[in-house]
Amino acid sequence: MTKVEINQDLRALNRQVAAENRKRFNACGVYVINIMGSPGSGKTTLLENILPKLGGKLRTAVIEGDLATQNDALRIEKLGVKALQINTNGGCHLDAKMIAGQLQKLDLAGLDLLIIENVGNLVCPSSFDLGENLRMVVLSVAEGEDKPAKYPIAFLNANTAVLTKTDLLPYLDTDIDVMKRYINDVNPKVTVLETAKKDGEYQVDQVVGHILSQIGQYRKAGE
Amino acid sequence: MTKVEINQDLRALNRQVAAENRKRFNACGVYVINIMGSPGSGKTTLLENILPKLGGKLRTAVIEGDLATQNDALRIEKLGVKALQINTNGGCHLDAKMIAGQLQKLDLAGLDLLIIENVGNLVCPSSFDLGENLRMVVLSVAEGEDKPAKYPIAFLNANTAVLTKTDLLPYLDTDIDVMKRYINDVNPKVTVLETAKKDGEYQVDQVVGHILSQIGQYRKAGE
Repeated sequence: MTKVEINQDLRALNRQVAAENRKRFNACGVYVINIMGSPGSGKTTLLENILPKLGGKLRTAVIEGDLATQNDALRIEKLGVKALQINTNGGCHLDAKMIAGQLQKLDLAGLDLLIIENVGNLVCPSSFDLGENLRMVVLSVAEGEDKPAKYPIAFLNANTAVLTKTDLLPYLDTDIDVMKRYINDVNPKVTVLETAKKDGEYQVDQVVGHILSQIGQYRKAGE
Repeated sequence: MTKVEINQDLRALNRQVAAENRKRFNACGVYVINIMGSPGSGKTTLLENILPKLGGKLRTAVIEGDLATQNDALRIEKLGVKALQINTNGGCHLDAKMIAGQLQKLDLAGLDLLIIENVGNLVCPSSFDLGENLRMVVLSVAEGEDKPAKYPIAFLNANTAVLTKTDLLPYLDTDIDVMKRYINDVNPKVTVLETAKKDGEYQVDQVVGHILSQIGQYRKAGE
């Protein structure tokens, strides 16, 4: 058996478990977001800032994926949001089975939204469906313009890209329009959103608005 | 055969090929550096700035690893340095066999230094020995303080860490001393260096000095 065949077997198995996860989510009307991006792209900071704005409107839980530490789950729990931590112990991505293993700890019927923050990695997570509705890639403008061209799979498989840390643009060589063009060249269907920090506050309204609108469409389709 | 066993087999095979690579490098007295780090941590920019400073002293070639594009090899060739591009087509790291496949294109006997820039990824590359002498992890201060704790394998297996973009520190929440403490907690043997951009110039003297000193030691040991 070659390496490629092993990978194909693992991915076929993952797709099957992801489909089962998706059935369970849909049965309870839970909308699921899978957030991906490089280490330090700003995934957890984005969560910390969108969760308080979604809190009044949606019952939300979070699953955090990391190689090691409980750091991110602790950051989320400080906001009063239920957070489960998966440690992959070296694994470079979450898979559908790891998510399935967490679902018994969640009251799905009492949830509107489940956000999964994947392991920080712009390569591996994008090949593994977890059963989500929305695939969000987080890319910091400090990472440089051409990352979508150099890591195309992440953007090919995404619905939404969030460009973070745009307040750093004056101090960087990054041209955000060129960065957006690179994303568009890989996948013109990706919705591109921006966040920034201004006077100590994170501006995440575009992301919050997009999530609420997507959940609205999901619910309408399920009626 | 379980997934773990497959991985162990692949890694054992990789170690064997890496040992063969290392023999070939040592036979020609070529010092080899394997540079790892997240996408956008500043690996290629570091190379662009150290290569001209090493050029007068060392005969150098570069191997670039990326999922897609020839972008990085083209950036290096502009400096007049021989650069070979490996595209992994989705693979999240280089392995020893990929490097072995490039060696016929290089005149090893006419080289002092081979620098390999791995695929942008803080997880996968660290588990695959390529036959290098120096393992260098590049971490941008924009990625946040706790990355060494959350991605420990990269730092456990490294000799050197380069903290880049320190000129952005005034605009970030990162405390560089805390970041260094995190590295030290994972692996106190890692030499930590810094780079910054000042008045449009990249300050990379610490890195250049370290490489020259390591090569000096390597040559002395080989005498």
